[in-house]
Amino acid sequence: MKYFSILIIALVSLSAFAGNNQATDSVKIKMIFDRALSEHYGINNLKYLTKSIGPRVAGSKNSLLAIKWSKKTLETLGLDTVYVQKCMVANWERKKDEISTIKSRKLGSKKIDVISLGGSISTPENGIDSQIIAVDSISDLQKLGTEKIAGKVVFFRRPMDHTYFRPGKAYGSNSELRVRGASAAAKYGAVAVIVRSLTMIQNDLPHTGIMRYDTTQPRIPAFAVSTNSADTLDKWLLDDPKLSVFLKSTTIIGEDVESANVIGEIKGSLYPDSIIIVGGHLDSWDVGEGAHDDGAGIIHSMESLRILLESGIKPKHTIRCVFFMDEEMNQRGGRKYAELAKIKNEKHLAAIESDGGGFNPSGFGMDASDEKLARFQSWVTLFKPYGVREFTKGGGGVDISFLKSLNVPLIGLSNDSQIYFDFHHSANDVLENVHERELQLGSAYIAALIYLLDKYGL
Amino acid sequence: MKYFSILIIALVSLSAFAGNNQATDSVKIKMIFDRALSEHYGINNLKYLTKSIGPRVAGSKNSLLAIKWSKKTLETLGLDTVYVQKCMVANWERKKDEISTIKSRKLGSKKIDVISLGGSISTPENGIDSQIIAVDSISDLQKLGTEKIAGKVVFFRRPMDHTYFRPGKAYGSNSELRVRGASAAAKYGAVAVIVRSLTMIQNDLPHTGIMRYDTTQPRIPAFAVSTNSADTLDKWLLDDPKLSVFLKSTTIIGEDVESANVIGEIKGSLYPDSIIIVGGHLDSWDVGEGAHDDGAGIIHSMESLRILLESGIKPKHTIRCVFFMDEEMNQRGGRKYAELAKIKNEKHLAAIESDGGGFNPSGFGMDASDEKLARFQSWVTLFKPYGVREFTKGGGGVDISFLKSLNVPLIGLSNDSQIYFDFHHSANDVLENVHERELQLGSAYIAALIYLLDKYGL
Repeated sequence: MKYFSILIIALVSLSAFAGNNQATDSVKIKMIFDRALSEHYGINNLKYLTKSIGPRVAGSKNSLLAIKWSKKTLETLGLDTVYVQKCMVANWERKKDEISTIKSRKLGSKKIDVISLGGSISTPENGIDSQIIAVDSISDLQKLGTEKIAGKVVFFRRPMDHTYFRPGKAYGSNSELRVRGASAAAKYGAVAVIVRSLTMIQNDLPHTGIMRYDTTQPRIPAFAVSTNSADTLDKWLLDDPKLSVFLKSTTIIGEDVESANVIGEIKGSLYPDSIIIVGGHLDSWDVGEGAHDDGAGIIHSMESLRILLESGIKPKHTIRCVFFMDEEMNQRGGRKYAELAKIKNEKHLAAIESDGGGFNPSGFGMDASDEKLARFQSWVTLFKPYGVREFTKGGGGVDISFLKSLNVPLIGLSNDSQIYFDFHHSANDVLENVHERELQLGSAYIAALIYLLDKYGL
Repeated sequence: MKYFSILIIALVSLSAFAGNNQATDSVKIKMIFDRALSEHYGINNLKYLTKSIGPRVAGSKNSLLAIKWSKKTLETLGLDTVYVQKCMVANWERKKDEISTIKSRKLGSKKIDVISLGGSISTPENGIDSQIIAVDSISDLQKLGTEKIAGKVVFFRRPMDHTYFRPGKAYGSNSELRVRGASAAAKYGAVAVIVRSLTMIQNDLPHTGIMRYDTTQPRIPAFAVSTNSADTLDKWLLDDPKLSVFLKSTTIIGEDVESANVIGEIKGSLYPDSIIIVGGHLDSWDVGEGAHDDGAGIIHSMESLRILLESGIKPKHTIRCVFFMDEEMNQRGGRKYAELAKIKNEKHLAAIESDGGGFNPSGFGMDASDEKLARFQSWVTLFKPYGVREFTKGGGGVDISFLKSLNVPLIGLSNDSQIYFDFHHSANDVLENVHERELQLGSAYIAALIYLLDKYGL
């Protein structure tokens, strides 16, 4: 009986303690959200990044302006240290707008809206003028073979599957067409490829994104075509299977140039050598303004540190924000960060990334041991007042993925956006399509998670 | 042991049955979502309602066109019955755009953006030209008293509180200024009121909405002012407390005219006298196009029946969609529906309403007994693949609220939108601000819920 009573007392005390802790945490988290939702630093900084700097391909002049501005901006926040971490990047540049026209003896000619994929070579100076052949998949190429494909432009026509609830899954299931389509078609003698843009929205804007050449195949130019123009291609090809297309592009695959990650940190009061990082990527594609991808991630990272500081929360661990360079092309920034972390034998408690746009957050996903996952998931109730759906197993981000080999728990901010791929990698990824409150909820989610990670560890 | 074995067998069979049922339900619900996300009837019908018909104040010519069109459209769906249910409505009309200028001896004059609140009387033909006095709340009026207020225009300056996670709560906490402000100020001799628009967005568009006169006070004109103009008023009043404002409006409070709810139904195969209804409201304000408020609800209601039919689901209960008239002003359609349901002694299994815009759904809320609530909440797992957050206690909608006295379980579609009040009751509530996939997820949520209500009852 005695032991039982002690146990009861111990349990009651523990739950009272837990209760108190939870109450304190709720109050702190409310402070964080209140600040995020009532201050305008986040959107104003995004405005500068998107409107005064603009698009910022790794290695471009704008990317250097973004490094300079973001370092300067971090220096105004009252952090303990702000510095750049140099890395090399291979610049790629679109020199002129692409030109493309389809031509049919039966139907006449019509301009279509195309854009070079990132990393693509130029067309010959006089362009390419060839018959076009449509396929749905990479495996279709083998079925058709060299006889049907050689000398032609391959059009990957397959639309994203609208029945996926998560557009990201539909994107994932089509992205090999964009990434591997050119080399796969070159294998059978294709002279260029046109890929239907990876989006569900129906309009005239083509969406770019990285493509990769397989070194065993000849390099051929690769384009994305807007969904409206892809539909036109489908229709015209039905009426005239001998349809031809003219394509002209000028791109420059540059040499390696110096670039950098930008880093700011709050020194931990108790465990300065144990680090929590939060990052997004500073580079973007050259169309649009990189507002959601990944201006939002930069603001989330910057704001979460600012909000913690302004809320008077003094972290025990070192909190570091990292603005990674070159996510879109070769992830040289993310690789460099992990390489140096390994050399310096840095200990990371957790790494958080935001690279899904500035939309209403639904929670986080984490890639870590089940034990750590259980602790992480126990915090979800603290986010209930803020519309959380769940804290899931599995998550992270491209830039922080290189820390996986160092056994760092990787965390990604999640959202349920149906509209991200409407803007993604297109001229519509602009400030006007970011909603301040949705953006700031992301900043608050991350600041609150850092607060919990710092307080309880993982 | 024998009983124990029987119990085990019974439990295993039950859970296998439950498992099978759940698998069947998942498949049916996936069919529903696939159809909703891959067909375009919903957005095309919303296009007609918003672009070819446009705004539709109860009693207006457009509202009659909407009745006619929606009846005709329901007739194409293959329902068993389509009919109108007549009701009277009191029309209110804005005759001309409002004019308003602030004037200061020190600062000069400046146009501000105002709009008459719904139900407001006109200003005198020559307008109102009076000093303006700012207050934060209705209780402030009493503190100032007749001496300070008489003969002046009262400006309710209080912004919506940005720290609420749910903008709807911030809206709710400020809405008494719009609804009751005029009569509250008239009590102390005010000659007109201007209310800061009930929105968190910062722009030049004023947001209208219903106001009510207290019959014990003189009627004075009531306006909303855009958030930008409200900020201007705040600033100018700081510099010149003697600031005056000119206001001119022309509105007509019309007589009762005939209008109608529009109803379509699928007759139940087993329980035709037990009815599940799903509704939205067909009327809207006269600015914008009533796209989210509540064109989306009309589409949700129409689409959920269409999707069930097209999916080959034959309901046991009667499924009825109701397009209610006059939600924005006097809810005469909702009242009429409940009145006739009572007279005809109709039995409603449940009533569902969608009146929160065409945004990413987060679940449903239900106002019913705890027993029914438990059954309802057990279905939430079936919506997990579609981003559901929760099925909550408490919910419904204005139009179906009149069925509460008949003990009908009331259900409302929920979402976590941060942007609804950016558009709500303003010129920005247009088709372009509705996203097809988000809209259609609402249609699928409702169709799936009807499928479950019909299959399992409540």
